[in-house]
Amino acid sequence: MPLNLADTVGYAAAVLTTVAFFPQVLKSWRTRDLSGVSLTMYGLFTAGVALWLSYGVLLGTWPIIIANGVTLALASVVLILKMKHR
Amino acid sequence: MPLNLADTVGYAAAVLTTVAFFPQVLKSWRTRDLSGVSLTMYGLFTAGVALWLSYGVLLGTWPIIIANGVTLALASVVLILKMKHR
Repeated sequence: MPLNLADTVGYAAAVLTTVAFFPQVLKSWRTRDLSGVSLTMYGLFTAGVALWLSYGVLLGTWPIIIANGVTLALASVVLILKMKHR
Repeated sequence: MPLNLADTVGYAAAVLTTVAFFPQVLKSWRTRDLSGVSLTMYGLFTAGVALWLSYGVLLGTWPIIIANGVTLALASVVLILKMKHR
């Protein structure tokens, strides 16, 4: 199954916007410094990613399900840490 | 043009994950407190959103272009503030 340019760019985009949350989780977990992180942002973002996951499930599209499942887990950790360490 | 359930969930998801960055920009702009924000996260995330924007341009899909154009602008502000106020 050859990938065209748009597919390749889309997969690279999905990988970057998903793995981006790993360093934030590591930093927040290690330092417990969440002072500059917006609680409202993580509340809205986590809800939005949960909807993206639902969208993937409704369409049965695995790349959307996997990318948003991972992002949902990571963003939820930041949200919970922010709620504990305001 | 009636929207089906998946379309509706997808649009709601796009709106939430885009507007989520407004409160982060406002907080970072007002307080200049970026201490808990990961520079690596915003570097990777901004690059990823730029690729999502390119993906939308390649496909000619306006909802993807608009949502990621707005998110790119907002994430770039946080990235620049983080680089200035580490």
